[in-house]
Amino acid sequence: MSENRIKIVEKILNANERLAEQNLERFDNTNTYAINLMASPGAGKTSFILATIHALLEDQVRIGVVEGDTAPVTIDSDKIMAAGMPAVQINTGGECHLDALMVEGALAQLPLDALDLVLVENVGNLICPAAFDLGTHSKIVIASIPEGDDKPYKYPNIYRGLDVLIINKIDLLPYLDFNMDYFRQGLEMLNPGLETFALSCKTGEGLQDWLFWLKNKLPRK
Amino acid sequence: MSENRIKIVEKILNANERLAEQNLERFDNTNTYAINLMASPGAGKTSFILATIHALLEDQVRIGVVEGDTAPVTIDSDKIMAAGMPAVQINTGGECHLDALMVEGALAQLPLDALDLVLVENVGNLICPAAFDLGTHSKIVIASIPEGDDKPYKYPNIYRGLDVLIINKIDLLPYLDFNMDYFRQGLEMLNPGLETFALSCKTGEGLQDWLFWLKNKLPRK
Repeated sequence: MSENRIKIVEKILNANERLAEQNLERFDNTNTYAINLMASPGAGKTSFILATIHALLEDQVRIGVVEGDTAPVTIDSDKIMAAGMPAVQINTGGECHLDALMVEGALAQLPLDALDLVLVENVGNLICPAAFDLGTHSKIVIASIPEGDDKPYKYPNIYRGLDVLIINKIDLLPYLDFNMDYFRQGLEMLNPGLETFALSCKTGEGLQDWLFWLKNKLPRK
Repeated sequence: MSENRIKIVEKILNANERLAEQNLERFDNTNTYAINLMASPGAGKTSFILATIHALLEDQVRIGVVEGDTAPVTIDSDKIMAAGMPAVQINTGGECHLDALMVEGALAQLPLDALDLVLVENVGNLICPAAFDLGTHSKIVIASIPEGDDKPYKYPNIYRGLDVLIINKIDLLPYLDFNMDYFRQGLEMLNPGLETFALSCKTGEGLQDWLFWLKNKLPRK
């Protein structure tokens, strides 16, 4: 990598930090809690968002969603809107992660004053999203049982910077060789004491503990 | 993105093309067939390589493996060497894909003259690896049933440039809502007539068709 390129990459990251701070300020000024949701493709980010929306309907929690995709598809944002919540779709144009500027653009299209929570669904990728702060209050990764128990060892960066880890698709545990102890040892090495919730968005098992954690974070409007 | 950055990215891609051509020449001169294997994290790349190695043992096919990881872990290369085949591990140092230069370095450590096949296991990622040719004869993506049936729609670039698609973990079909027709429609739109093999590395179901395809590609040494 040339020295020029390194300088340019540094400039991009610094600009991102600045914009991330502005996004955070925006969330705080409108009293909205924000989460950056990261995961592999197919770990269940959208199912997790939908399960959270449905579970919080009776508490009248208003949730806005920012959907990051590498292509101009509205599959996920259509599902969110069908669940009655506002969603903005970001097409990264092939880029492998969201950045703070993209999120800033999306926030301009969400009624933040009327929302309690913003869930930002990052591009499905365990590598690039780890390097770009979006200005959210917390970063959550969704791991899933079929991905295997060695992922913390192989993708350490994304597990290091996390606030919460969701372990999704536990309904598939009987059909797979997933060693939960080995998985948790890897986690503990990278991010000691990390809050984790093992659950199934399909059956609803384990969802209550996650919802309890989340409700405690939501501001009173 | 600044004009400077675009120029630099173009230079990097052009340099990669040149090195990829040299890698291809290297494979051809040593009469070795080479495959670039791409997939999401946890789709089963290493299991697929191991299943292929074991199935071809009796035919005395010699397989070398290049293992790409974003961290200095030897979990996968250890498994390959335990199966009796030479493996070289590349640590990309956080980079989200392999490139032709990294592969060139790895090839210097493999006994190409004594090999029939080189399998390059790319970093687990459905986005970045699509942009970097490694100089292999074919590009294969491994999709897996638990990732869901919408992946071709969401990650079109990687499905467009493919020669073969493996659909792994079909043993999990009874436990998941995976619409194979919807998945195949997406594929057909992006890559008409693409060769696909649906199989399970765990049960061995469907592996024969893949092996038949592969054996036809292998040179006679």
